[in-house]
Amino acid sequence: MKLATIRTSDGTRAARLTADGYVDLGYTDVGDLLTHDDWTGRAASDGEVHPPRGADLAPVVTRPGKVLCVGLNYRTHILEMGRELPEHPTLFAKFVESLIGARDHIELPPESDTVDWEAELAVVIGRPVRRASTEEAEAAIAGFTVLNDVSMRDWQFRTKEWLQGKTFEASTPVGPVLVTPDELPGGVRPAASISCDINGEVMQKADTSDLVFDPVDLVRYASTILTLRPGDIIATGTPGGVGHARTPARYLVDGDTVVTEIVGIGRLDNTARAV
Amino acid sequence: MKLATIRTSDGTRAARLTADGYVDLGYTDVGDLLTHDDWTGRAASDGEVHPPRGADLAPVVTRPGKVLCVGLNYRTHILEMGRELPEHPTLFAKFVESLIGARDHIELPPESDTVDWEAELAVVIGRPVRRASTEEAEAAIAGFTVLNDVSMRDWQFRTKEWLQGKTFEASTPVGPVLVTPDELPGGVRPAASISCDINGEVMQKADTSDLVFDPVDLVRYASTILTLRPGDIIATGTPGGVGHARTPARYLVDGDTVVTEIVGIGRLDNTARAV
Repeated sequence: MKLATIRTSDGTRAARLTADGYVDLGYTDVGDLLTHDDWTGRAASDGEVHPPRGADLAPVVTRPGKVLCVGLNYRTHILEMGRELPEHPTLFAKFVESLIGARDHIELPPESDTVDWEAELAVVIGRPVRRASTEEAEAAIAGFTVLNDVSMRDWQFRTKEWLQGKTFEASTPVGPVLVTPDELPGGVRPAASISCDINGEVMQKADTSDLVFDPVDLVRYASTILTLRPGDIIATGTPGGVGHARTPARYLVDGDTVVTEIVGIGRLDNTARAV
Repeated sequence: MKLATIRTSDGTRAARLTADGYVDLGYTDVGDLLTHDDWTGRAASDGEVHPPRGADLAPVVTRPGKVLCVGLNYRTHILEMGRELPEHPTLFAKFVESLIGARDHIELPPESDTVDWEAELAVVIGRPVRRASTEEAEAAIAGFTVLNDVSMRDWQFRTKEWLQGKTFEASTPVGPVLVTPDELPGGVRPAASISCDINGEVMQKADTSDLVFDPVDLVRYASTILTLRPGDIIATGTPGGVGHARTPARYLVDGDTVVTEIVGIGRLDNTARAV
């Protein structure tokens, strides 16, 4: 099952993506739908069908209670950098003001000239969970989506804490859909090709099975700290190929197209725009 | 004016603290009240009076959209550590699950044995603001409250990013009230004594006028990154005297009383409890 949040003249709506279009499920967004224990049944219901062409996609969860992000999590990339595999996940936060839809513009703020891309697999939580066992963590995963953890490197490295370079307004596309684990090879531990292209040139390409801490590990770990709730998002980290690590370094400029894709989930297609 | 959020049999309620008690203002919490442009007028209205004794205080804003925290911000403490004053504020996040009321228990999770205190002045935002001028930043401050940024030091220092040691469930008291700037010496840049006592022994004592980045600076800075909204909280950093920096180090144990106070705002009175 593929779920999306679309913008309509009546505000945002949760919808199921079918061959015919987006079937309106009667909720304000996918996050709202997920607050119901029986959301899988509700997500299968009928409703008004919005045409697929020209659909205006909102962030798949418009106002997640939490966006947790993971750093340094692709095994191949860590080893090629000559680093040791980490013992614990590195976690940082993003606020909802940073989230945009799958085809919205990425805002390039005048305060940064080092805006970079980070293609990521993102977990969406489907039920409340604290101190999860492996089985509970697996069951708490509603599905997966694509997220680009766009980062203002100058602000990220102004201080030791990355937050301020990670949460600029209207910078982080998330979508286009939530795909339930049953539709993905690997299920709750998806094995899928992830990539980021800038102006049609491949910058990042990896497989999500290369994660040091897989989605289930991350749900378990984060749930030790605090309760995860329906609609919460965990961005699982990015592979090699970011602009900041290139020689010479490369950053987004006005008009760049950023395509972030995970095979079997979908594709974010955003243009960077100076504001 | 002093505003609080109290727990009643009908759920939480925003209230104005007067000599007679808590005057119910008809909103679910102070954050809800602050979403109204004319909140100062609404906060002056009459309503049912709840008795002051035994009032059950919720976090003054129960579900802030954002909790931004600042590290390394007391001038005297930075200089005595032999460090240079920072050029930019260090920012990190907390999630709402960590927030508790002014008299609630601080949960000591079994996963950490290095739970530490950090008394802080916290700003509460009263109107939306982005890329604020000094005047706009001043006007965006609804008032101030007290926050203890309780930190699990082992988890904080597991990785370079502090978040995971800063956002454990039910660890961070915030309250007891929001005090508007007109009631404080220094107004939007309060000059007030801040302290943290453990079992009656003074551990931290400083003056909030010693901040490197004052509340107005912090609102300006954070609003460059993203829109600040009514109910958002900025915790402005802690002075010297935390347990982790003592010789020998000292951490909270079951039954410890933690009193966090800012003169003119109020006092948090929490007991640490192993869970």
